Amino acid sequence: MHYPEPLAKLISELEKLPGVGPKTAQRLAFHIMRAPREDAIRLSEAIAEVRDRVGYCERCFNFSDKPICDICSDPRRDQSIICVVEEARDVVAIEKTGEFHGLYHVLQGAISPIDNVGPEEIRLSELVERLGDGTVTEIVVATNPNVEGEATALYLARLIKPLEITITRIASGLPVGGDLEYADEVTLGRALSGRRKL
Amino acid sequence: MHYPEPLAKLISELEKLPGVGPKTAQRLAFHIMRAPREDAIRLSEAIAEVRDRVGYCERCFNFSDKPICDICSDPRRDQSIICVVEEARDVVAIEKTGEFHGLYHVLQGAISPIDNVGPEEIRLSELVERLGDGTVTEIVVATNPNVEGEATALYLARLIKPLEITITRIASGLPVGGDLEYADEVTLGRALSGRRKL
Repeated sequence: MHYPEPLAKLISELEKLPGVGPKTAQRLAFHIMRAPREDAIRLSEAIAEVRDRVGYCERCFNFSDKPICDICSDPRRDQSIICVVEEARDVVAIEKTGEFHGLYHVLQGAISPIDNVGPEEIRLSELVERLGDGTVTEIVVATNPNVEGEATALYLARLIKPLEITITRIASGLPVGGDLEYADEVTLGRALSGRRKL
Repeated sequence: MHYPEPLAKLISELEKLPGVGPKTAQRLAFHIMRAPREDAIRLSEAIAEVRDRVGYCERCFNFSDKPICDICSDPRRDQSIICVVEEARDVVAIEKTGEFHGLYHVLQGAISPIDNVGPEEIRLSELVERLGDGTVTEIVVATNPNVEGEATALYLARLIKPLEITITRIASGLPVGGDLEYADEVTLGRALSGRRKL
């Protein structure tokens, strides 16, 4: 292809983004070329700035531009309950529900022997450290309902058991608005075994 | 949402890209946060650099990092034939076919009264200027086969007629590997009227 070298470089950098193939990378690069110059500069600066100014909260390991994130330092949040998630994006998803008012702990991964990720590779010891002073009385394990997430939840349950802290797991079952007919058998099985009194 | 401010800014900048909605923007931003720092910096620099170093070829208005682009300054290319396209991405598409060895002219748009784009808004006068010295003997009009592209092709044909230059239009018809049954009637009609002797 007859791309000028800086354009070829931009396309190859864009291709490294998730879900961006060669065609999309080219479309994005051509858009960046044609868009107002200020837009391109703002995007370039935003990318550099996010890496310079955003790091991890020292307590919960969510993304934060301060040593302690806004959620951890908010006195109105329930300090006695911690929701454990795999990734920062899961915090966003749970915050959107408006149903949870406690604190979070982002593991930054899940136990996955196949990917060589053991308990030491994720932020488990940091979680146990947070439980030391007796403030926390409940841990809600909100790892993904897949093999890695379940393994992590089980490991966590065993790890926390001696501490006399209630440990709960988010419910698996039919999605709201879903249809029994189209549910897979594992999900339907979980929905049955997790049935609750009305 | 509890995004740190630089992260919120990056997400809103990413949302301006074509085909990128709020969910994709969040996914891309989170990827940029987790990817190796060098990758993020390289992407940021590539965006800034492409706007600093890539402009338009003074002759054909394709993207170029030099005053005259590689295609225009390549002596092996047939200087007597110019393929007229709407956008720089169309040059890439035609180059990929390997079927065209002449020069290009990028109009940077198509005539579209509904969008207030008249013949003066696109690079038509610059094309006519290129035809002045008599080197060019054929113009291949490869604007898109839609209303705007056809209008531009017709306007161009009228504009160039007095110059005694052959003007051709790329063929419309069934895509290779396509199926007669699923072709729309306009395309099939074009395929019939554009039939060629075997």
